[in-house]
Amino acid sequence: MSRRVHLAALMSACALVSLGAAKAAPPPASQGDLEARLDAQIDPAEMGRWLKQLAYEPNHVGSPHDKANAEWILAQLKSWGWDAHIEEFSVLYPTPISETLELTSGPGAGFKATLQEPPIPGDESSLRAQATALPAYVAYQGDGDVTAPLVYVNYGMPADYDALQRAGISVKGKIVIARYGAGWRGLKPKLAQDHGAAGCIIYSDPHDDGYAVDDVYPKGASRPPHGFQRGSVADMTLYPGDPLTPGIGATKDAKRLTREEAQTILKIPTLPISYADAQVLLQALDGPVAPASFRGSLPITYHLGGDGAQAHIAVKSDWAMKPLYDVIGTLKGREQPDEWIVRGNHHDGWVMGASDPLSGQVALLAEAKALGGLEKAGWRPKRTIVYTSWDGEEPMLLGSTEWAETHAAELKAKALVYINSDGNGRGFFRAEGSHDFQHFVNQVAADVKDPETGVSVGQRARAALAVRAAEPGASEETKALAKAASDPAKDMLIGPLGSGSDYSSFLQHLGLAAIDVGYGGEGESGGVYHSLYDDYEHHSRFVDPGFAYDATLARTVGRMVIRLADADLPVQRYGDFADTVGRYLDEVKKLDTAKREEAVAQAKLLAANAYRLADDPTQAHGLPTAFEASPPLAFGPMEAAVTRLKASATAFDQALAAKGASLGKGQRDQLDAALRPLDQSLLRSEGLPGRPWYMNMIYAPGRFTGYGAKTLPGIREAIEERRFADAAAYVALTAQALNAYSAGLDQAAAIVNGR
Amino acid sequence: MSRRVHLAALMSACALVSLGAAKAAPPPASQGDLEARLDAQIDPAEMGRWLKQLAYEPNHVGSPHDKANAEWILAQLKSWGWDAHIEEFSVLYPTPISETLELTSGPGAGFKATLQEPPIPGDESSLRAQATALPAYVAYQGDGDVTAPLVYVNYGMPADYDALQRAGISVKGKIVIARYGAGWRGLKPKLAQDHGAAGCIIYSDPHDDGYAVDDVYPKGASRPPHGFQRGSVADMTLYPGDPLTPGIGATKDAKRLTREEAQTILKIPTLPISYADAQVLLQALDGPVAPASFRGSLPITYHLGGDGAQAHIAVKSDWAMKPLYDVIGTLKGREQPDEWIVRGNHHDGWVMGASDPLSGQVALLAEAKALGGLEKAGWRPKRTIVYTSWDGEEPMLLGSTEWAETHAAELKAKALVYINSDGNGRGFFRAEGSHDFQHFVNQVAADVKDPETGVSVGQRARAALAVRAAEPGASEETKALAKAASDPAKDMLIGPLGSGSDYSSFLQHLGLAAIDVGYGGEGESGGVYHSLYDDYEHHSRFVDPGFAYDATLARTVGRMVIRLADADLPVQRYGDFADTVGRYLDEVKKLDTAKREEAVAQAKLLAANAYRLADDPTQAHGLPTAFEASPPLAFGPMEAAVTRLKASATAFDQALAAKGASLGKGQRDQLDAALRPLDQSLLRSEGLPGRPWYMNMIYAPGRFTGYGAKTLPGIREAIEERRFADAAAYVALTAQALNAYSAGLDQAAAIVNGR
Repeated sequence: MSRRVHLAALMSACALVSLGAAKAAPPPASQGDLEARLDAQIDPAEMGRWLKQLAYEPNHVGSPHDKANAEWILAQLKSWGWDAHIEEFSVLYPTPISETLELTSGPGAGFKATLQEPPIPGDESSLRAQATALPAYVAYQGDGDVTAPLVYVNYGMPADYDALQRAGISVKGKIVIARYGAGWRGLKPKLAQDHGAAGCIIYSDPHDDGYAVDDVYPKGASRPPHGFQRGSVADMTLYPGDPLTPGIGATKDAKRLTREEAQTILKIPTLPISYADAQVLLQALDGPVAPASFRGSLPITYHLGGDGAQAHIAVKSDWAMKPLYDVIGTLKGREQPDEWIVRGNHHDGWVMGASDPLSGQVALLAEAKALGGLEKAGWRPKRTIVYTSWDGEEPMLLGSTEWAETHAAELKAKALVYINSDGNGRGFFRAEGSHDFQHFVNQVAADVKDPETGVSVGQRARAALAVRAAEPGASEETKALAKAASDPAKDMLIGPLGSGSDYSSFLQHLGLAAIDVGYGGEGESGGVYHSLYDDYEHHSRFVDPGFAYDATLARTVGRMVIRLADADLPVQRYGDFADTVGRYLDEVKKLDTAKREEAVAQAKLLAANAYRLADDPTQAHGLPTAFEASPPLAFGPMEAAVTRLKASATAFDQALAAKGASLGKGQRDQLDAALRPLDQSLLRSEGLPGRPWYMNMIYAPGRFTGYGAKTLPGIREAIEERRFADAAAYVALTAQALNAYSAGLDQAAAIVNGR
Repeated sequence: MSRRVHLAALMSACALVSLGAAKAAPPPASQGDLEARLDAQIDPAEMGRWLKQLAYEPNHVGSPHDKANAEWILAQLKSWGWDAHIEEFSVLYPTPISETLELTSGPGAGFKATLQEPPIPGDESSLRAQATALPAYVAYQGDGDVTAPLVYVNYGMPADYDALQRAGISVKGKIVIARYGAGWRGLKPKLAQDHGAAGCIIYSDPHDDGYAVDDVYPKGASRPPHGFQRGSVADMTLYPGDPLTPGIGATKDAKRLTREEAQTILKIPTLPISYADAQVLLQALDGPVAPASFRGSLPITYHLGGDGAQAHIAVKSDWAMKPLYDVIGTLKGREQPDEWIVRGNHHDGWVMGASDPLSGQVALLAEAKALGGLEKAGWRPKRTIVYTSWDGEEPMLLGSTEWAETHAAELKAKALVYINSDGNGRGFFRAEGSHDFQHFVNQVAADVKDPETGVSVGQRARAALAVRAAEPGASEETKALAKAASDPAKDMLIGPLGSGSDYSSFLQHLGLAAIDVGYGGEGESGGVYHSLYDDYEHHSRFVDPGFAYDATLARTVGRMVIRLADADLPVQRYGDFADTVGRYLDEVKKLDTAKREEAVAQAKLLAANAYRLADDPTQAHGLPTAFEASPPLAFGPMEAAVTRLKASATAFDQALAAKGASLGKGQRDQLDAALRPLDQSLLRSEGLPGRPWYMNMIYAPGRFTGYGAKTLPGIREAIEERRFADAAAYVALTAQALNAYSAGLDQAAAIVNGR
């Protein structure tokens, strides 16, 4: 599900680690030997064969190959010595019965969108899957049958609606056509619906992943004219998982909402289409010429539309319940069996899903085989290792969410961290996650060899960041990240986690630490994402020839798992988390000032009639909605909480560095038990405003970004959206969460100090 | 010639005026009456008729209609009471004999570029001019006949060659294809030639002025598929005017260089083409996919090319001498006949030139008729007014340059200021010029009514700037300009002059103050610029329906001329100039620091092998050329000169404000005589490095921007290009120029103070 994104977007801004003193001890010699044996067992050619098999047929939820894959994965885990089983859930999962999209008036009237992806010459998989692939469809849209004028809304994000208002265009009662990009897919129909639209079309503009970016498949990796992006449009920003069972596992007998009650199901019919189809619709539009930011790479003049061209959209779905097949395998720990290291990747795709998710899935399998091999050869992890192969990630993180909700209490008691991967490819290491693990991630990245250059994947990532920051036009954020990464003695900053893959429930609902890892950024454009053409042929030609980076992912995560499972002392470095939160606080304080100044400036412009004077009077224009004046926000509780957090984190890190080696087993176990639930203190049972399922006060997917993270979300989003009462309330709640975290750290420090 | 550019680019950054005390006195009541009578005589309908006639046939240099227009303009001036004549020059002006552009290998081999613009249905002018319009041609390219592989070089600017080097692509011996934009046209073949290319093609990508921007003509204003941009590619950055007579007038008996000696004539064959033709060439290219910054709006994957597709380009020109017809008219001053206010606009176009230049030409004519009318009614200006209608601006400012060079001594002795206009259109007031006239420009803009909104054109320009600065993603420069303009009691900052229209010789070679004025920014995209379609039909439909803004230009410049001709006291405010130079000094100091840091950062990246590690090893790559380390530049002499300038300017402005009203006629004449040559003290006879014709140490067209201005150019460009010895030398020379200016101001202040 998670769209492979380049390093730039992923190593997002966090504070520089300055606490040089608290380095964790290097792994013992036997650890190095163990990791060499791990590496030796990972075989890219075998991974390629697995990939070919898993991606042989469409494997979306409810398909025969989805179930067959789960059963095959189960059999492999068992054969490698894992204690494994399939855990089933029953979820509401719609599939299309009928779909129509046609132009009913305007130029091109009578045109019918194809809504099917034709086979590509030389690509056998695309031919084989013709009968079984899902057509153009987005899950959890609202069935309906609407004929209405078309309006082009660019990316369909809030700023685009502001621009439409200035252009005097309303979408009320109309069908919007939005292009993919700039924000999560599901926000497009959601925002359209909120603005009164009656239907929504989403298309892939060639500017964003088509011919503008690279040659189109099969000549190159980019999206061919008739390719389209399927996906979920359930309102993830409220909660992920089965729409009928928010907060609880979708077990057989779970108490369910009705479909009508489920707030994450949208109300308007929505279809994704190709740019070949979209060009006909967009060419039919009249009305004002679209502003510069709305223009894609089709060879047309983009217009906003309004009244001329009418379209007819009709979608009817089968809203039956479907089974999910999560595969769960365990290697039991020899010393601390009740402390779990959880690792996951999903196995369902939108069609054949070779890159997304199976490239990550075969890495997980390679790790599982190697760990099983190590165990067969006599190794046993100190802690328990739990490997999870999720079903139903694509429709809305179904398999991971239902499992996490079902096993919430046990996970909260036992799990130390959840490590996720998803689609993977050739290129550069990237990681995002909980910042107490930032140093650990850097240590692992320093010890994994990049297959193309021979240096460590960490060193290569630093080099790429440095070169990008030196390019003309580099953003201030990139420059700041590169500056932080330029000292090899210090850590690269990792970005925060939003959503878009299976870590969400663990991090944002259960409060567990989470890490997401992958490679990418070379040789592919994302142009087959969620299409028929994300298949074995495409992955092995463009995304990861020779499966070298899929194998590197296995070596990376395998190392993480072994180190976490066997560590004598906690690998976390809390100063990193404290510095990061300090940086986030600085950001929201600046944001608050900027928003206040923006309101003042706008009021001045309105009072001076500046918009009317600046507008072309020969065209229709609307005035911007006047901002409410925003009072200064009192950040005192947050400032105090961050000060305390920094002090507590420094004290703990220094104590552990000084005395860790001398702790006895009893103290070490006591310390583990004290630290394990620490990240859960970042939860507040109130949840975030309007979305109680999201309880983490530090990390959340953005209400208006979707996959993109918002940090200190209760405060930050309230400021962004000018909800001033919420902002003040969440300064207090977030500070409380941080204070609880600091108190937990103080207790842990007391254990280390023997008090 | 000058491309109509929107306000954003034109009101470029200068320092905020803070000297509220030195406001010039308001015009006397009779002045207001005079201006009302000026306005009353300006008739948009009549201007439209003139425009239709002047644009009825192609009027490029050497065409019958060019000569006929000059004679008609002369007759008009005479009929309105002006003392007028035609001044002829004889210049080298090439016209095409034969042209070929074809694909000789690769996909599409055999394709021949059309190089002709077809007529547009409903546009009679485009049909009428079919036989007489120049074909696709750029003046002063180097004739030749070359067959070689094609390489796409984006805009063909220095940064693009850096990107090509990183991509491992050389243009040596090849034909480059560049798109219009990002820098002046003539730099593209010049830089190609400097990089060893054998030929150059320039095309208009639809991204920049075609269908991406607006509907194409005739539905909208944008460039249709077969439209192309003619123009000059003489090396303007060395000197403008006739290539054979640098620095002297191209009179009949002038001593001329040979064509071979003339350094402004390029060496490689060059042709401009349409995007319909360009698409076939670009589609034929192989090699690496072009970087994101290279991608236009054609429906193709842009490749860099290299070896696959070959093209054949052949250009043969008639290099005969041609006559220029400058029309010069004079209204003699009654009190100070030897102090001149010079006003000009060219009358030659590339084809019919309705917008460029005739929209400005009819404004000039309307002013001339109105001034003649005022004189007939009894008014006589205190100072002499000289109206000039230039020929040969398009090929390289020929008419204005040769006239200015011929009359250099008289102009230096008598001219106070040169006021220019060129193509004009509907929208927003803009002005650039010598900053001692910034306050004067603002006063005039405050007194001219905008035809669409009814407020003053100054107020509307401020509103547009304020709204643009409030838009998401507004540049820091726009925000700073808007902030300065937000106080209605203070002046809007005007930008500096580079080149691209007839002010260049006056400002940059003779050292006269100059102002360039126009309207634009609404309703048109620049898409017919220098094409067959810049005709009466297009101008009157899209660029200025009803000729309302052409008339407003006449009211604006007419007011300027009257006020300057009649002013009792100098209108200049020298504190504005001093503040502006102070701001420029701050900019070059920052630039120096940035360039030094850039070299240090690059050395670090090279030493760490970061480029190789960041590059995709499956593709060819080159390393960037290592920067020379730059020593810190000593700005002491400039800092002292700016401090002195600010003090002298403040002292003069305050003295004039306090005592101006009490000066007697003798003192006023003495003061005028002292101030008239003041701007000439900014010249240094050394000229700028490598281009001695440009002698102004404050304002110049950029060596690598062309039309775009570089301020403090001797220092700024030396830093940009890492010529460290030049930078140090021009700190001294520029400071000397400023010190001479300050000394002149001190003398003028002594006159005011009666010492």
